[in-house]
Amino acid sequence: MSKTGKVEREEALEYHLGGKIGIEVTKPCVTQRDLSTAYSPGVAFPCLEIERDPKLAYEYTGKGNLVGVISDGTAVLGLGDIGALASKPVMEGKAVLFKKFAGVNAYDIEINEKDPDKFVDICVAISETFGGINLEDISGPRCFEIEQKLQERVNIPVMHDDQHGTAIISSAGLLNALEITGKKIEAIKIVVIGAGAAGVACAKMYKAMGAKNVIVLDSKGVINHKREGLDRVKQELVTQTDEETLEEAMKGADMVLGLSKAGILTPEMIGSMNADPIIFACANPTPEILPEEVAAVRSDAIMGTGRSDYPNQINNVLGFPFIFRGALDVRASKITESMKLAAAKALAALAKEDVPESIKKTYGREEMSFGRDYVIPTPFDKRVYVWVSAAVAQAAWEHKVANVESFDVEKYKEELEARI
Amino acid sequence: MSKTGKVEREEALEYHLGGKIGIEVTKPCVTQRDLSTAYSPGVAFPCLEIERDPKLAYEYTGKGNLVGVISDGTAVLGLGDIGALASKPVMEGKAVLFKKFAGVNAYDIEINEKDPDKFVDICVAISETFGGINLEDISGPRCFEIEQKLQERVNIPVMHDDQHGTAIISSAGLLNALEITGKKIEAIKIVVIGAGAAGVACAKMYKAMGAKNVIVLDSKGVINHKREGLDRVKQELVTQTDEETLEEAMKGADMVLGLSKAGILTPEMIGSMNADPIIFACANPTPEILPEEVAAVRSDAIMGTGRSDYPNQINNVLGFPFIFRGALDVRASKITESMKLAAAKALAALAKEDVPESIKKTYGREEMSFGRDYVIPTPFDKRVYVWVSAAVAQAAWEHKVANVESFDVEKYKEELEARI
Repeated sequence: MSKTGKVEREEALEYHLGGKIGIEVTKPCVTQRDLSTAYSPGVAFPCLEIERDPKLAYEYTGKGNLVGVISDGTAVLGLGDIGALASKPVMEGKAVLFKKFAGVNAYDIEINEKDPDKFVDICVAISETFGGINLEDISGPRCFEIEQKLQERVNIPVMHDDQHGTAIISSAGLLNALEITGKKIEAIKIVVIGAGAAGVACAKMYKAMGAKNVIVLDSKGVINHKREGLDRVKQELVTQTDEETLEEAMKGADMVLGLSKAGILTPEMIGSMNADPIIFACANPTPEILPEEVAAVRSDAIMGTGRSDYPNQINNVLGFPFIFRGALDVRASKITESMKLAAAKALAALAKEDVPESIKKTYGREEMSFGRDYVIPTPFDKRVYVWVSAAVAQAAWEHKVANVESFDVEKYKEELEARI
Repeated sequence: MSKTGKVEREEALEYHLGGKIGIEVTKPCVTQRDLSTAYSPGVAFPCLEIERDPKLAYEYTGKGNLVGVISDGTAVLGLGDIGALASKPVMEGKAVLFKKFAGVNAYDIEINEKDPDKFVDICVAISETFGGINLEDISGPRCFEIEQKLQERVNIPVMHDDQHGTAIISSAGLLNALEITGKKIEAIKIVVIGAGAAGVACAKMYKAMGAKNVIVLDSKGVINHKREGLDRVKQELVTQTDEETLEEAMKGADMVLGLSKAGILTPEMIGSMNADPIIFACANPTPEILPEEVAAVRSDAIMGTGRSDYPNQINNVLGFPFIFRGALDVRASKITESMKLAAAKALAALAKEDVPESIKKTYGREEMSFGRDYVIPTPFDKRVYVWVSAAVAQAAWEHKVANVESFDVEKYKEELEARI
């Protein structure tokens, strides 16, 4: 029987002994002839082909299915700046998820360099190794500059998952919640608690989807027109409101996204929200307010958390493996806003499909179908692999950032199905 | 039946489709609980341990069994400067050999940076990822400076295999050849054809072993006291001789090491060598002189090549996988001269052991025992794994570059045996 309850320190340390990933050789390598093909002299042939036409690196090496999971260790989980080396277990963990969920190979690379420009230089210099780069656990506001500058200098897709992961998954939930409650995104009031990597990206994505009233709070309160000394990133988040506190902002809000800390949302604040409120409380492991506390004050809420033991888990693993899967499979040169939106819409659409019994069993829930308690699919739904990867690849193709000769989404879906 | 003869272009390209290495997840990763242990929240525990004590990265991550195979693509095989990207098949091939021969994981990293200092800066910045760094296919004389500067700045073992691989394997053959012919290294005349990475390292290693008369030639002839405009590396190789040509140098030589090109050694030159000459003709795929051409002019030679279809193959794969295996297992902070010499001596000693029938069958040779046609073991002899790794680890321990609390070479050998 599998254990239940919290993962304990001793259990986690024992699990990690010797790490959790390794290299596997994917081609025959037993005879002298195998060696002469995999290495000298046979290996000279693919080298010469790639020298002649660099695109052939996607044919004759693992580049096209390899992501660099790169961090400087400055904002690791909720632990802060623990340094590059100490971030290695997380980066290896990300590589585990890439492989397990989408068959993507990933090398974890810990870079001991905190200057953003030098960090970007290093990523650029090693970028030919990879088909894509997943930036991870880099502190704000450096992370915004790093992602943008790096993407400008390489022709492979770059994504800082801490920014866009939560934005994409919560957007999927938001789209479905709007449909269920009959609201329009243009008309709703959204409160985002936290102006770090994820908060900034979420606010931007909601606005890109049409939201007009997005109020973002940092540790000093609402980022409004009265605030002074804001950095460039926060200046873009300024709202023309006189609201200053979380309590004020929550009044009449239709949605709140919590990216801060346990318990910061009170039942009174939830009570002051508009009808049919959307509450995504993502602080880990304890959310800004617990679902049972919300249920105690109102029955019309759509509630999500970062946890697997409550409905509507906002879990980045629903995004990054498949976003890179799709991007790699069409050799995308970047990850565009349209690709992220396509991922969100695919997740939203999948939530409306019947849920297989096996998934209900995994979660111990008899009732699992589209509705207030199911606006986001679960990571164990294997269809996410096909739906999201295909949507991302198609968006890349349509927006002309793909680098393949042709693309047929139905055929690609069949290929993905066959790989499961 | 396996194919025989030369590896053809089409065969090599087909073999390389999609590359030849991938990531494998080495821990259970099926249930929700597995995910919560491999990634958030469980992964925070090893992160915090490593933040507290960086040495624990060797316990809780794959660092201790992970080598970075790093190249700038400036001197790839015999192809020259084909660039970082085009070198990727070779670096992936090296990763294949690391895994297959010694169970060492390796990430290939192609760095698009030709300035030696910047290249070193990048290697230093990403070095925490790895337990060791294997530099590969970097052009001379940059490679000497890069290896030295990098090793000075990191506390993990660094080795440029193009330099030291051939030096170690040919030294093993040389030691046995001296024993068979009853010569002393101090008294022999050695000619090294080629003053690139391998030539320089070989000359230095033979001198470190006691050789007094080592004549090195580059494309302009003998590097002697009359030569002008020599770089710092070649200045160290200057000999007080008036010999200028290969023909002159070969007269009375006891050993010649060819690291140049096919056919450069003539039967006349071989005829002019001292009695019982040692001829290691390593040009690939066609040696400086073929064994049958040597046999036609004299019967007292000990002949080796880089090829598997002749006796005494001088193949780097006899070295690097096990040198890093031993270095990693005692968490060595560098690879010292004594560790390289220990590897050479272990190889030399193993050649004196009985050869298993299975190996004779692999090579189609009925007679395979210590003697002129068997001064170096073969890569398919699994005992190399135990002998060389143990010798290197022991040398690291004795020379105080190991970072383990205790070391018992017999116990370590048993561990290695058990892993085969």
